[in-house]
Amino acid sequence: MKEEGLLIVLSGPSGVGKGTVRKEIFSQPDINFEYSISMTTRLPREGEVDGVDYFFKTKEEFEQLIAQDKLLEYAEYVGNYYGTPVDYVKQTLASGKDVFLEIEVQGAKQVREKFPEGLFIFLAPPSLSELHSRIVNRGTESDELIRGRMEKARKEIEMMNLYDYVVENDQVEHACERIKAIVVAEHCRLNRVQHRYHKMLEGE
Amino acid sequence: MKEEGLLIVLSGPSGVGKGTVRKEIFSQPDINFEYSISMTTRLPREGEVDGVDYFFKTKEEFEQLIAQDKLLEYAEYVGNYYGTPVDYVKQTLASGKDVFLEIEVQGAKQVREKFPEGLFIFLAPPSLSELHSRIVNRGTESDELIRGRMEKARKEIEMMNLYDYVVENDQVEHACERIKAIVVAEHCRLNRVQHRYHKMLEGE
Repeated sequence: MKEEGLLIVLSGPSGVGKGTVRKEIFSQPDINFEYSISMTTRLPREGEVDGVDYFFKTKEEFEQLIAQDKLLEYAEYVGNYYGTPVDYVKQTLASGKDVFLEIEVQGAKQVREKFPEGLFIFLAPPSLSELHSRIVNRGTESDELIRGRMEKARKEIEMMNLYDYVVENDQVEHACERIKAIVVAEHCRLNRVQHRYHKMLEGE
Repeated sequence: MKEEGLLIVLSGPSGVGKGTVRKEIFSQPDINFEYSISMTTRLPREGEVDGVDYFFKTKEEFEQLIAQDKLLEYAEYVGNYYGTPVDYVKQTLASGKDVFLEIEVQGAKQVREKFPEGLFIFLAPPSLSELHSRIVNRGTESDELIRGRMEKARKEIEMMNLYDYVVENDQVEHACERIKAIVVAEHCRLNRVQHRYHKMLEGE
């Protein structure tokens, strides 16, 4: 029987740079896991490509997938749906490959319930004030929206408790190195490798 | 208050290559932890330097240190004592630096009792997984030879249970990379970093 792959979940507060870190990781040649592309009903931003950055869906299509239980997780955020198609994840894990999800915290919570044995990494801002300035420097958003996001970030930092690891996004390259190290380490964890050796003894 | 360093313990069956892996790790420029030099009553081998490879002591000196509870762990092996001076380890950890021990399995067991929060890495012989494929591909070796190897493997696998991680020493460079990744990952473990973020929220 083939060994299942590892489900790797990267999440963290809005604005912390999950997408940038994920893109940097997947730009590297020594990556050994598959990216699960999310689905969303929000409109593509400039340069975003359907099937690469996201699968872009209508609200109706998305709600149909929810009704059919075809999403591993989903969340509504600023009026749009975001979610992870379940079939791709299950098939890839079953084939023995690791799957990497980059999702919002509400989604991560749902995945934790369904895959408690997954590897959950929380991307943390170096400080709340830096998160604040990052949001401000986007330049496109109102003070009220920013204050709302700060309050949300505070709650999300409290959500850290659901995760196995916390990686501070002080520099994208450093964060990527740490995430890659965590995946390597996780494959060496006693509880993940032990059964292989026990099988070997039993299979005598 | 300064944060305590991490106690890293590398151990594994006799002959697995612990010393070679440890030397390779410490030959690398990006290592961020201190090596705790062991103490022994055996005579220096050619090229070995006191205070570099070991602290060489007489049997009387060593037994006095045992009596004074100055050893974190010790074991007798082929008529000689081997042990870890406790003061160096405690002082280095208190200064916030990680300490790396490379010790025998009996010693690792003693350290686990005193430092349950340490990071324990089991270096596994590649012969274990080689053995697996030999069993699967039966036919080239006698049953008796396989049985003998299985017995040895069984004992080695039982040792594993006390450890947090298992690293196969298939190639020295690969084993070193994995050990370094485990140390990086361990510093990102939720239970090790959580309190920093709680401070951040309180201190805002």
